[in-house]
Amino acid sequence: MGKEKIILTADRPTGKLHIGHYVGSLKRRVELQNSNLYDKIFIMIADAQALTDNAENPEKVRQNIIEVALDYLACGIDPTKSTIFIQSQIPELCELAFYYMNLVTVSRLQRNPTVKTEIQMRNFATSIPVGFFTYPISQASDITAFKATTVPVGEDQEPMLEQTREIVRKFNAVYGETLIEPEILLPDNSACLRLPGTDGKAKMSKSLNNCIYLSESADDLQKKIMGMFTDPGHLRVQDPGKIEGNTVFTYLDAFCKPEHFEKYLPDYPNLDELKAHYQRGGLGDVKVKRFLNAIMQEELEPIRSRRKEFEKDIPAIYNILKKGSEVAREAAADTLSDVRKAMKINYFDDDELIAEQSKKFGQK
Amino acid sequence: MGKEKIILTADRPTGKLHIGHYVGSLKRRVELQNSNLYDKIFIMIADAQALTDNAENPEKVRQNIIEVALDYLACGIDPTKSTIFIQSQIPELCELAFYYMNLVTVSRLQRNPTVKTEIQMRNFATSIPVGFFTYPISQASDITAFKATTVPVGEDQEPMLEQTREIVRKFNAVYGETLIEPEILLPDNSACLRLPGTDGKAKMSKSLNNCIYLSESADDLQKKIMGMFTDPGHLRVQDPGKIEGNTVFTYLDAFCKPEHFEKYLPDYPNLDELKAHYQRGGLGDVKVKRFLNAIMQEELEPIRSRRKEFEKDIPAIYNILKKGSEVAREAAADTLSDVRKAMKINYFDDDELIAEQSKKFGQK
Repeated sequence: MGKEKIILTADRPTGKLHIGHYVGSLKRRVELQNSNLYDKIFIMIADAQALTDNAENPEKVRQNIIEVALDYLACGIDPTKSTIFIQSQIPELCELAFYYMNLVTVSRLQRNPTVKTEIQMRNFATSIPVGFFTYPISQASDITAFKATTVPVGEDQEPMLEQTREIVRKFNAVYGETLIEPEILLPDNSACLRLPGTDGKAKMSKSLNNCIYLSESADDLQKKIMGMFTDPGHLRVQDPGKIEGNTVFTYLDAFCKPEHFEKYLPDYPNLDELKAHYQRGGLGDVKVKRFLNAIMQEELEPIRSRRKEFEKDIPAIYNILKKGSEVAREAAADTLSDVRKAMKINYFDDDELIAEQSKKFGQK
Repeated sequence: MGKEKIILTADRPTGKLHIGHYVGSLKRRVELQNSNLYDKIFIMIADAQALTDNAENPEKVRQNIIEVALDYLACGIDPTKSTIFIQSQIPELCELAFYYMNLVTVSRLQRNPTVKTEIQMRNFATSIPVGFFTYPISQASDITAFKATTVPVGEDQEPMLEQTREIVRKFNAVYGETLIEPEILLPDNSACLRLPGTDGKAKMSKSLNNCIYLSESADDLQKKIMGMFTDPGHLRVQDPGKIEGNTVFTYLDAFCKPEHFEKYLPDYPNLDELKAHYQRGGLGDVKVKRFLNAIMQEELEPIRSRRKEFEKDIPAIYNILKKGSEVAREAAADTLSDVRKAMKINYFDDDELIAEQSKKFGQK
């Protein structure tokens, strides 16, 4: 058996997906799906992980699964090519995590920089839920269960991948070659790493009300773009403006393609010229924002209208998720069976053990 | 449905059971079983828990499951009355533990006195496996999975039970009344709480070679008793001897019944008189040890010979464990189904969710 190329990616269903998800991950995922370079693609709606820090608000998670699924389909994730599934419907993941927990020390988890950052971000201080603290182990279970070779994530997730690789190596060393070490697949465009919020803050977040959702209406999208953070020192059109930290230009870096100029802003041959004019002075924010709006409307309109189509038959979406979860469960059960065999805890099927012990007691 | 009375107890399969297990737990368990006061009794061979601190030595756990099962049956655990099962064969336990982990904080686990003591005993220092660190949560899953009302353990386990009750209360508060709070059932005889090793050390342990196993041969049993730690100051028969910390007398407290005197030591009417003579001086260790030997041979002989019978058909024992594990799995699956319903993560069976969301998107 040649080594299959398998992708696993996931999103937490704590809200609708926004264009940060799209640019940082979802768009690429669709490209990878359509590249036909991968044998299998698993896309997980990580409800169980979302519950690790939303245990007291399960309704939020429950209501957002469909939103994430709709966003996936709207973006072009094709259930005939990619397996979309819900994490909590794969109990095998819990069992794998349970065994991996024996192979990781508490102090190793405490040293994980991603966990440290996330704990800070969530203001957990001393009251971190155990499920949240141990989520790198749960993630290792998600990745290995599907024998993923490739995990397309941002470089901030590298420590998580390293934790998974450590678990794989430890497991294979103790119980024999069983699990597959995954590799990270970093974004190929550095501008896409992380899109700031419309207010210029580093991260889009529902609570800051600075997100542009994939399912945003045309009107709302325009309003959000026209109200976007630019250069606070750029007060008059004739003033020189800054590009760095100017959200409108960051978004243009992510969305603008050469052909957009001919179509929407023929006065400029390309983005560099537009930036230069803005920096010199004499180019107003409104003009740039209108340009960005035209581009983003073009990009998001087909997503929006596909979503509307999918929204018409919600039971069908759940059916896609159910079918996907069945496929995913079978794959995870396969791996779990390998794991249990390697650990030799499949006693009732272990004829060797029973024969050996019958002999031992017979000789006494 | 009146509240059923259900017992859960467990042992870690890291070695054959010794008379410390017998006096502290197993003997009582057989009495509870035969009292017919309980609707169900679940007896778990905790291999998964044993792996939390034996991950690199799975063979030890694998080989000792049968030893523990044989000891159970030899002592009178009756598989038609009690369900004997293997923890790792009940994957539902992992899933329950996974969800309970969201309801406990890391600092709460760190404060658990039983965990603190166990960590010290095992010299883990900073390299505690996560699986070991989180075992109070795993134990909560074992107890609640079988809807246990009653957990017969020593008082050192009270903090573990309290952790379980906290999880039950938290779960029920967040997701609605689902789980049952267990009660501890303490031993009724304080002498039985903990039997010292034959060398007088507080704890019997394989590595100290100070255990008397339930399956000990008659010869080995006699040798161990005759070599037992007594009062190191009691050098000559005529010297006064101490009772406190004298292992032979501690064992007599646990095993000796009034009728034993008539049968084996008719010079004394009861244990108090024997102790008084020893304390006065004039009573030799050998005489007391021979008396203890007679008593313990009488107690252990039937266990030993029943074990020999059971050892003749090892596949039959595995069959008992397999059948028991099937029964246990069904019970745990029932509870898990309640838990998933309460958490509302059974999306595909959740007609209400699907209808509600169809309506919501239809109205947009």
